[in-house]
Amino acid sequence: MTTPLVVDTTVDAPHDRLVRAKDASRSIAQLTSSDKARALESIASALEGASERILAGNALDIERGRAEGLSDALIDRLRLDAQRVSGLASAVREVATLPDPIGQVIGGHRMPNGIALEHVRVPFGVVGAIYEARPNVTVDIAALALRAGNAVVLRGGSAARESNTVLIDVMRRALTDAGIDPEAVQTVDDFGRDGAKALMQGRGFVDVLVPRGSAALIETVVTESTVPVIETGAGVVHIVLDETAPLEWARDIVVNAKVQRPSVCNAVETLLVLRQAAPQLIPVVASALQSEGVAIHGDDMVAGLVSNVIPATDDDWAAEYLGLEIAIKVVDTLDEALEHIRRYSTGHTESIITTDSRSAERFLAEVDSAVVMVNASTRFTDGAEFGFGAEVGISTQKLHSRGPMGLAELTSTKWLARGSGQTRG
Amino acid sequence: MTTPLVVDTTVDAPHDRLVRAKDASRSIAQLTSSDKARALESIASALEGASERILAGNALDIERGRAEGLSDALIDRLRLDAQRVSGLASAVREVATLPDPIGQVIGGHRMPNGIALEHVRVPFGVVGAIYEARPNVTVDIAALALRAGNAVVLRGGSAARESNTVLIDVMRRALTDAGIDPEAVQTVDDFGRDGAKALMQGRGFVDVLVPRGSAALIETVVTESTVPVIETGAGVVHIVLDETAPLEWARDIVVNAKVQRPSVCNAVETLLVLRQAAPQLIPVVASALQSEGVAIHGDDMVAGLVSNVIPATDDDWAAEYLGLEIAIKVVDTLDEALEHIRRYSTGHTESIITTDSRSAERFLAEVDSAVVMVNASTRFTDGAEFGFGAEVGISTQKLHSRGPMGLAELTSTKWLARGSGQTRG
Repeated sequence: MTTPLVVDTTVDAPHDRLVRAKDASRSIAQLTSSDKARALESIASALEGASERILAGNALDIERGRAEGLSDALIDRLRLDAQRVSGLASAVREVATLPDPIGQVIGGHRMPNGIALEHVRVPFGVVGAIYEARPNVTVDIAALALRAGNAVVLRGGSAARESNTVLIDVMRRALTDAGIDPEAVQTVDDFGRDGAKALMQGRGFVDVLVPRGSAALIETVVTESTVPVIETGAGVVHIVLDETAPLEWARDIVVNAKVQRPSVCNAVETLLVLRQAAPQLIPVVASALQSEGVAIHGDDMVAGLVSNVIPATDDDWAAEYLGLEIAIKVVDTLDEALEHIRRYSTGHTESIITTDSRSAERFLAEVDSAVVMVNASTRFTDGAEFGFGAEVGISTQKLHSRGPMGLAELTSTKWLARGSGQTRG
Repeated sequence: MTTPLVVDTTVDAPHDRLVRAKDASRSIAQLTSSDKARALESIASALEGASERILAGNALDIERGRAEGLSDALIDRLRLDAQRVSGLASAVREVATLPDPIGQVIGGHRMPNGIALEHVRVPFGVVGAIYEARPNVTVDIAALALRAGNAVVLRGGSAARESNTVLIDVMRRALTDAGIDPEAVQTVDDFGRDGAKALMQGRGFVDVLVPRGSAALIETVVTESTVPVIETGAGVVHIVLDETAPLEWARDIVVNAKVQRPSVCNAVETLLVLRQAAPQLIPVVASALQSEGVAIHGDDMVAGLVSNVIPATDDDWAAEYLGLEIAIKVVDTLDEALEHIRRYSTGHTESIITTDSRSAERFLAEVDSAVVMVNASTRFTDGAEFGFGAEVGISTQKLHSRGPMGLAELTSTKWLARGSGQTRG
């Protein structure tokens, strides 16, 4: 027995994990709502009970991350502590309380010939996820997938591999304890790049793949996958101010949208101000931003109205800063603002501050983004704010789901037809 | 000027067609329901008026097809005559009368802070279609896409290229006559393989791609596309007969499902009969099939009950005959039937004939197909039968749409948020 590892790798190829997930998905799909809630409670308790083990795994990741020179920001995203582990467990319990989308009847009617047609929500089957540093995604996605009756195959960032190994082991044991097939939670992390590839190419075994992370990660997944993908994309988010915008709304909304949590996809990145409104609005809004530590990239007119403006380049209009920076541009007309948004928006969220109802309705109709707002902060594009109770991600694609995704977005549908001998004439 | 063709190709690359479709999609998206109906009426009249030109183009395709040795069946699919052209125009007029899905409010609520949230149907933008021989698909898909407010980029089969060139020209002129941007209907046929490639790789310009045709075509599109695809797949459709199946229902439904139109995806291909029911049901059902000219591939038990049975191989269980052939297998239990379906079904439609409600409900719950039936012919899986008024195709994927697709499946959604200065706390 000199080659046990080689034998193991042969027997347990990444594709086998997909097969096992698919097999398990059949029993998971048939679980009742309370079975699923019980499974999640078991996972939550197990996470709490395994806190020390989880933190020990995480400490190894942090240590390796430091040795490999990861930035402090990345180390922070990677780090778990007792409170964060307890937060993970609470999040799982919250998911357990969400209404079960499975079995919901979303349509149907009796056909003229008497066949009763019912359109019902069913699980996808196997949900794949490819993501980066934060180990909490491992638990979040698994809990959401299970709540919606799916098995899940996870591929986390290599920076979090020790943390994820422990988290997945804890969840699988918890499922076993609850009498539920542990094969419903799989990882392909141990196969490195081959694992990701198997997941992306797992047609017939993986029903949907959700990438979460950088634009580069998402681009890779979209390009290499033969499995259907839901893009959860970047947010080059715009706010437009016109000459009817109340000064306080403009200032408060822009500051909130930029500063309240600058590192997330629904934070504003570019401010477009109608020329007529610029002299009144820009100095006030810019000074409010600057007093919050926001660096301003602006065009010539902005530079003429505000001090300490960094000249904006084309790169700034396309930038997702994800930090305390903003680009400000003066435009001549609403048309020019709409054209700028068409060119640079990633289709996530845009908002206009105006009291002119014609401009408001035109903006709502013509901006082709997942969420289009009037007189509200772009930070409201969020599953919890939308009342979904949990968020799988924010889809910037147009297929299947657009905008904040709740549990229902992790389901498919099927048609049930109950007849009494009908044939087609 | 010795190289005009080269210059033309450079200026008018396939990608330019996508750009023009995307540009046009913006005005098409803003058309009212009656504008769109008017555009379709203009197309219908133009098709009627251009009947001779269309038939002349079609005659060239038929001639070339014969010279290239196309089968009679393919020639028949390719062929247009005056009646079929008139049928094309009628189909366009029918699409014009369908309720407009755009602007439909499918959800929404007032957020606790007062923001009014509305979830509305919007056009995809640009719908791509890659399909094979039948030129009527060119008109059908364009009409459906336009009705739902989309621009369309078409890539038809090379066998129908003269017919499609004329049809597209007629539709574009009709749009111009109706005062609507003709760039909303594009073809990439003239670029051959490069055209298909541009369409499949047109991320950011093509919002969804619908392949219609053979399993090989669909496989290619799924594999090569970076644009989201809706698979309209093959149908290896099963009917299960158990020991409680009324003899007449079993016979009538199986014969109808096989014989009424054998060349389509919702025709049954495999019959699974519970062993206990086999002696009673198989002779009657098989003889009814044989009297309709259906060849029977069967296992040993079937061969013992019926004459002229061709021994079935594994290939038969996976076969989509699309003709007057059927595979019949005897299974010991419902579990074995479900396992066989899991292995060989393409997830299109399956039906069980039974009066045992436990078996019926188990079948409905456990079969993972777009449409699952009890006591009804699989031929009912159809957009018109389901009351959609038109059919884009039958999706066998789980993302976005599953089963027969109507106009609403050619739309996306967006969220509109109307506030009065709200910021996030």
